Amino acid sequence: MNVLFLNGPNLNLLGTREPEIYGTLTLADIETTVRDKAEAMGLKIDFRQSNSESELVTWIQESRGNYSVTVINAAAFTHTSVAIRDAISACGVPAIEIHLSNTHAREAFRHHSYLSPVCKGVIAGFGMSSYLMALDAAVTVIEKN
Amino acid sequence: MNVLFLNGPNLNLLGTREPEIYGTLTLADIETTVRDKAEAMGLKIDFRQSNSESELVTWIQESRGNYSVTVINAAAFTHTSVAIRDAISACGVPAIEIHLSNTHAREAFRHHSYLSPVCKGVIAGFGMSSYLMALDAAVTVIEKN
Amino acid sequence: MNVLFLNGPNLNLLGTREPEIYGTLTLADIETTVRDKAEAMGLKIDFRQSNSESELVTWIQESRGNYSVTVINAAAFTHTSVAIRDAISACGVPAIEIHLSNTHAREAFRHHSYLSPVCKGVIAGFGMSSYLMALDAAVTVIEKN
Amino acid sequence: MNVLFLNGPNLNLLGTREPEIYGTLTLADIETTVRDKAEAMGLKIDFRQSNSESELVTWIQESRGNYSVTVINAAAFTHTSVAIRDAISACGVPAIEIHLSNTHAREAFRHHSYLSPVCKGVIAGFGMSSYLMALDAAVTVIEKN
Amino acid sequence: MNVLFLNGPNLNLLGTREPEIYGTLTLADIETTVRDKAEAMGLKIDFRQSNSESELVTWIQESRGNYSVTVINAAAFTHTSVAIRDAISACGVPAIEIHLSNTHAREAFRHHSYLSPVCKGVIAGFGMSSYLMALDAAVTVIEKN
Amino acid sequence: MNVLFLNGPNLNLLGTREPEIYGTLTLADIETTVRDKAEAMGLKIDFRQSNSESELVTWIQESRGNYSVTVINAAAFTHTSVAIRDAISACGVPAIEIHLSNTHAREAFRHHSYLSPVCKGVIAGFGMSSYLMALDAAVTVIEKN
Amino acid sequence: MNVLFLNGPNLNLLGTREPEIYGTLTLADIETTVRDKAEAMGLKIDFRQSNSESELVTWIQESRGNYSVTVINAAAFTHTSVAIRDAISACGVPAIEIHLSNTHAREAFRHHSYLSPVCKGVIAGFGMSSYLMALDAAVTVIEKN
Amino acid sequence: MNVLFLNGPNLNLLGTREPEIYGTLTLADIETTVRDKAEAMGLKIDFRQSNSESELVTWIQESRGNYSVTVINAAAFTHTSVAIRDAISACGVPAIEIHLSNTHAREAFRHHSYLSPVCKGVIAGFGMSSYLMALDAAVTVIEKN
Amino acid sequence: MNVLFLNGPNLNLLGTREPEIYGTLTLADIETTVRDKAEAMGLKIDFRQSNSESELVTWIQESRGNYSVTVINAAAFTHTSVAIRDAISACGVPAIEIHLSNTHAREAFRHHSYLSPVCKGVIAGFGMSSYLMALDAAVTVIEKN
Amino acid sequence: MNVLFLNGPNLNLLGTREPEIYGTLTLADIETTVRDKAEAMGLKIDFRQSNSESELVTWIQESRGNYSVTVINAAAFTHTSVAIRDAISACGVPAIEIHLSNTHAREAFRHHSYLSPVCKGVIAGFGMSSYLMALDAAVTVIEKN
Amino acid sequence: MNVLFLNGPNLNLLGTREPEIYGTLTLADIETTVRDKAEAMGLKIDFRQSNSESELVTWIQESRGNYSVTVINAAAFTHTSVAIRDAISACGVPAIEIHLSNTHAREAFRHHSYLSPVCKGVIAGFGMSSYLMALDAAVTVIEKN
Amino acid sequence: MNVLFLNGPNLNLLGTREPEIYGTLTLADIETTVRDKAEAMGLKIDFRQSNSESELVTWIQESRGNYSVTVINAAAFTHTSVAIRDAISACGVPAIEIHLSNTHAREAFRHHSYLSPVCKGVIAGFGMSSYLMALDAAVTVIEKN
Repeated sequence: MNVLFLNGPNLNLLGTREPEIYGTLTLADIETTVRDKAEAMGLKIDFRQSNSESELVTWIQESRGNYSVTVINAAAFTHTSVAIRDAISACGVPAIEIHLSNTHAREAFRHHSYLSPVCKGVIAGFGMSSYLMALDAAVTVIEKN
Repeated sequence: MNVLFLNGPNLNLLGTREPEIYGTLTLADIETTVRDKAEAMGLKIDFRQSNSESELVTWIQESRGNYSVTVINAAAFTHTSVAIRDAISACGVPAIEIHLSNTHAREAFRHHSYLSPVCKGVIAGFGMSSYLMALDAAVTVIEKN
Repeated sequence: MNVLFLNGPNLNLLGTREPEIYGTLTLADIETTVRDKAEAMGLKIDFRQSNSESELVTWIQESRGNYSVTVINAAAFTHTSVAIRDAISACGVPAIEIHLSNTHAREAFRHHSYLSPVCKGVIAGFGMSSYLMALDAAVTVIEKN
Repeated sequence: MNVLFLNGPNLNLLGTREPEIYGTLTLADIETTVRDKAEAMGLKIDFRQSNSESELVTWIQESRGNYSVTVINAAAFTHTSVAIRDAISACGVPAIEIHLSNTHAREAFRHHSYLSPVCKGVIAGFGMSSYLMALDAAVTVIEKN
Repeated sequence: MNVLFLNGPNLNLLGTREPEIYGTLTLADIETTVRDKAEAMGLKIDFRQSNSESELVTWIQESRGNYSVTVINAAAFTHTSVAIRDAISACGVPAIEIHLSNTHAREAFRHHSYLSPVCKGVIAGFGMSSYLMALDAAVTVIEKN
Repeated sequence: MNVLFLNGPNLNLLGTREPEIYGTLTLADIETTVRDKAEAMGLKIDFRQSNSESELVTWIQESRGNYSVTVINAAAFTHTSVAIRDAISACGVPAIEIHLSNTHAREAFRHHSYLSPVCKGVIAGFGMSSYLMALDAAVTVIEKN
Repeated sequence: MNVLFLNGPNLNLLGTREPEIYGTLTLADIETTVRDKAEAMGLKIDFRQSNSESELVTWIQESRGNYSVTVINAAAFTHTSVAIRDAISACGVPAIEIHLSNTHAREAFRHHSYLSPVCKGVIAGFGMSSYLMALDAAVTVIEKN
Repeated sequence: MNVLFLNGPNLNLLGTREPEIYGTLTLADIETTVRDKAEAMGLKIDFRQSNSESELVTWIQESRGNYSVTVINAAAFTHTSVAIRDAISACGVPAIEIHLSNTHAREAFRHHSYLSPVCKGVIAGFGMSSYLMALDAAVTVIEKN
Repeated sequence: MNVLFLNGPNLNLLGTREPEIYGTLTLADIETTVRDKAEAMGLKIDFRQSNSESELVTWIQESRGNYSVTVINAAAFTHTSVAIRDAISACGVPAIEIHLSNTHAREAFRHHSYLSPVCKGVIAGFGMSSYLMALDAAVTVIEKN
Repeated sequence: MNVLFLNGPNLNLLGTREPEIYGTLTLADIETTVRDKAEAMGLKIDFRQSNSESELVTWIQESRGNYSVTVINAAAFTHTSVAIRDAISACGVPAIEIHLSNTHAREAFRHHSYLSPVCKGVIAGFGMSSYLMALDAAVTVIEKN
Repeated sequence: MNVLFLNGPNLNLLGTREPEIYGTLTLADIETTVRDKAEAMGLKIDFRQSNSESELVTWIQESRGNYSVTVINAAAFTHTSVAIRDAISACGVPAIEIHLSNTHAREAFRHHSYLSPVCKGVIAGFGMSSYLMALDAAVTVIEKN
Repeated sequence: MNVLFLNGPNLNLLGTREPEIYGTLTLADIETTVRDKAEAMGLKIDFRQSNSESELVTWIQESRGNYSVTVINAAAFTHTSVAIRDAISACGVPAIEIHLSNTHAREAFRHHSYLSPVCKGVIAGFGMSSYLMALDAAVTVIEKN
């Protein structure tokens, strides 16, 4: 069982960027912790970040047959990308939407997600734990499918 | 560390109600599984259901000083109750909003939650696992506070 | 064949309340007339009123297996209660929405009903006759199911 | 006592048209059953269908002095015709709006009716029974006037 | 100089229809008075009424080359007919929109006119005088063209 | 019989201002022509212009008892002034709203008028003739009152 | 002369709840001060709080004949309860809407009140003084009726 | 294989009407060219125009069993007619929506079509070629069905 | 302690203007009563009215250092004046918004106030008593500051 | 004569992706068929796909002087890309918008296209035939320019 | 070359008013700095402030023939004054809109400007520098005209 | 002091693209002039253009520590890119938004900017001068920080 973690634009700045919203952990810190827990659970993970919508689309397309679940923190693209939505629908790999912060407690334009309706579920607001919980969610999703 | 699980209207029908949306587990089944995992984690839980908005408000008010976190699946009240929102704000106990189904893939009126902006985070769409993941989220929330 | 008549908030004031909108009959008057017609049709009825959303939710939940049809004049809750809507969907007993007055000829917020999409049909604007016609509708609904 | 039944566009296709929405009865079948019940109630009826908005407007205009009540299933014109609304207001004959299907459970543009605010009441969702119940409603309306 | 007066649906009921809104004059009364004033001004007029959108469209199409100005009280079609708007644009005869009542003091849906943007001007609220003033407006419009 | 003509902001620029919209006549030209026609009709007129909302409000307040009708081209204030609307309602002198241009064929914010609902009627789009026709409308309004 | 003070959900937490919005006085403190002033004015008062919409509806229904005025701080129900609105309309006892905080300076959903249109007036933003001023308002309302 | 071409209101003016939008070809010119291409393709066509919504509705109803595809340029009715939409749905003959001009580059109210959701596809903006391409589309639609 | 009472446009007509909405007292009557109560309370007041937005803005600007509280019935400007709002924010003197009538029971455009969010509180619907209660509110506001 | 075919994100998955919406042909299949028809018509084509908005923008920019027409199936970018719209406007090569599916019969956000107003026309809903018809449309567009 | 600087309501309070938004410079400070830079650039300036919409309208009207450019910080009137917009359009002197603060980072009602569409450009958010940059912009605008 | 100038999609076409909107200068022309003025002011600049959202995001991320201010003409991305907005917020380098044209005088979708609220200020409508003025603005922004 393989899980693909995708991180959207500006998440490479994590730890340095607006810590009052996003905390002080870097994306590498998160990756390490996620990898540890995944290993303990007997899961393999892939963990990537891109500022490019098309790269994320391509990664999602290629996930087909290679991953059991995609966990995606699309960051800004959550609110603007129909292309990522369509990629998720098209590739057939079940997806889980996650967010570090509680997007519903922020600006109005962050309350709408193009991705939610084509994902299995959403986890938002728990910082790094959103990623860790997504591993449990991934197992649930795989078992249900 | 004590976690209060609150379940809103019609969740007492779980298992019998629209299984294509909510699955076949009863609320008692869920409670048992949650209790088991909580115990394993060294957490005490309280698990309640009510069809009454005022009972839920009162339980939230009384949680102050007695619980470290409230996990709430407010069901229909998610979309209509300012009173529950105000109770969460007022009581000071951090809250986690959960849903069995992915509310963003359902009717438009279920896309808006009065509770999200006053909760720490949201978990939706993973069936019973939404409850189990909330236990991990509760630990995260407590540690952060 | 059993029909459950449910009446929402403030309908207990009927006959005394704004007669230019609701007429001069009391709810007891209506019950008597409905009961007479039901008997003549060979139907048993139950006729209840509550100002409490949760009580209505509970009655709808309990209707399962005990009634063939629910006729509901949810009054104010028509426009605000997702909980009653969910109860109707969940219990599986077909429901008929009725109103004494023509809600579409009143304030704008009374033009939207949370219940209509999950009911079999709607009867509005005929005073007590809305209740009597609902008995005929109930038979139609039962025959179709 | 005379009741005019008016049927709007495409209702002449009834029985052949989308049976999962409108059932398998033809408009002639409905007319026969309505006529039988009307006779039994001592009412005379006229039963007409037109695909033409202006013909319906003219029939409503001519109803004055010739009919006690108009029962109208305006079909598509329900949602687009101010002319029919104005004709109902102008002619002074009380009108009852009916629909075979539950319009509130269909496309959003079918949730708004130009006619409801100038009709005495609305009956929707009970197939042919909507027509039959309209006869009872007609008696109620006449008695109240 | 020839002026075509067109009257839309239900205006044939004038004098009998809701006199508190439309006054007690019949359309024939108005025609006579308009004709008298037109004659005194040296203008020929044609004065027609139809409940049919298509008949009005056809009359407007045929006005080309036969009339200098069209004065149109489209009544209900003011708010719903793009076909009449397109006919006015297409035929090239300048048009003047008139109303007996002040449409802006009535229901919200009567505040919008599909015709106003393609007419030279609008006169509303002066009963029969709206028609008489339109004769003066017609002369102005002809002189400007 | 006395008629008060009120002209709002920027109308003092008439003749020099955007002639493709407003024509080449000055406000003085219009006053002369209106005065001539008024005299011929046996009417006295007062003709004023102000760029100040409060001056217009005060003139409307003072019209009470001194004028039979107010004709108002409120220009920009048409779309923004509740104060002028309230003054018209309060003073009790019937008012007629006029415009040189067809406001419905211009920017969207010019389609809404705060004044229309409290005026007897509206004349728009006929250049100076809008003013002359207002004299006829004034007589109609006085006769009706 | 009898005045009924009704307090909605979460107001029982007053003094402990978000003091930067609601101040540090408890509801009992407020009751005492209101009672003192009422006594000085020769008014009897009843002072109640409930988290239950239906209890508030029932209290309003029972106020008929027993109270001259109802003063209601419906808190969260202000924005969501048509049932309380209907109870106020139906019972015939004039009502005064009050708020501790200035609801218009808070979240957008608190700017709309279902109750305002059926109350005699509104007092908001003066903390405990909103209650005391309501006593003066009550006398005004009684004298006017 | 038979194709029915239906043309809505004002298309009979083609060639004379606003040539900068619609070109200089008459509807007869278009019919000739369409007929020639159809013949070459071995298709029979019927080509009609009406200013009447009800005539169009009736023609669509009668197409059942007589035509393989309907190609409809509903002109103004595109934006206002639910009756034509319902006729298309009801008759079961697949329909293709066409427009001479690019409706999305014109007034906002022309951006919405009641017909698109019940048609197989849309061709807009290519003048007479929209009609010719519809023949190819018709073949595609027939082959797919 | 000094209180500045500001009255907006058309309030100088009070007592003569629409008495069914505003009562029969003149503004002078109100001033006298307010002055009497103020004196009894040991408060000095200034009481002014203007139809001019700029005069009101200037008075508010000048209030700084000269008054402890401003009580403002901005009438029509309540709904249209950002300038008065900015003046209140800028001058630093706490303001209380008052209305004679219950603005929420009137036209929709009167439900929104530009002033409420920058005032300490709102009193609406109690006729002259709104002014008298504002004196008590003023004391509360001063004490809190 | 040269035609550039551009395909947007996820169209590289064609044939494997949601066949109930997009059919079973691959993009290569479509290219072959388009190329064959183009050759038969004496047209040269270029056929490209990209998941990258910037690559599409660059291709459109470079089309100037090299292509007579651009045919673009922008897929998801249809609804989100102002950059592609601006590139089409800027490069001066006439464009034709195409879609495999009927976008107006899908989710609401797919009903709006940023591209339509700057394209010559739109073809949607005919699967591969949308591409083939675009070749005919291209000839029409070239001839008109 | 003459530049007219116009300052709207409450800008006379500058330096004392909400320094966290508007800074600590007075309007006189700004005028001095602007005058110095203007002189250095060989430009004459006029620098005025008014709380009165009509005075600003009149100044703009009088600018014709006397000034090459108008620089306007309309403050609150930016969002409410159609009269100032019309004056700018009518007088023919090119205008530049400026703001001290970044209006798009403040309340939603400050995001819309009636003036922007009739001005040559907008400078917002740079405090006093917005005024100084406007001098450069003025030169650009004059050179282009 | 270092200033980074970023130019968004299609600005590489400047001078050739729609000269009536954007003028005839190329981006290289602008760069030269900006560089000259910057040098004269003692500022170093970097001047880049990209059609790629992700490249712009990356450049903004890398600006941290290397530039004192970013001046961004995001062109089409102004209206669609949350990713660029987030990059600006995250990198901590103050940004200035500029536009060649007056975006508020163009299509409605260009009136909204995702970037404005996170920029220090906005300059729009002055062609190349918008860039030059941005240099002055940059100095102001640096001095204020």
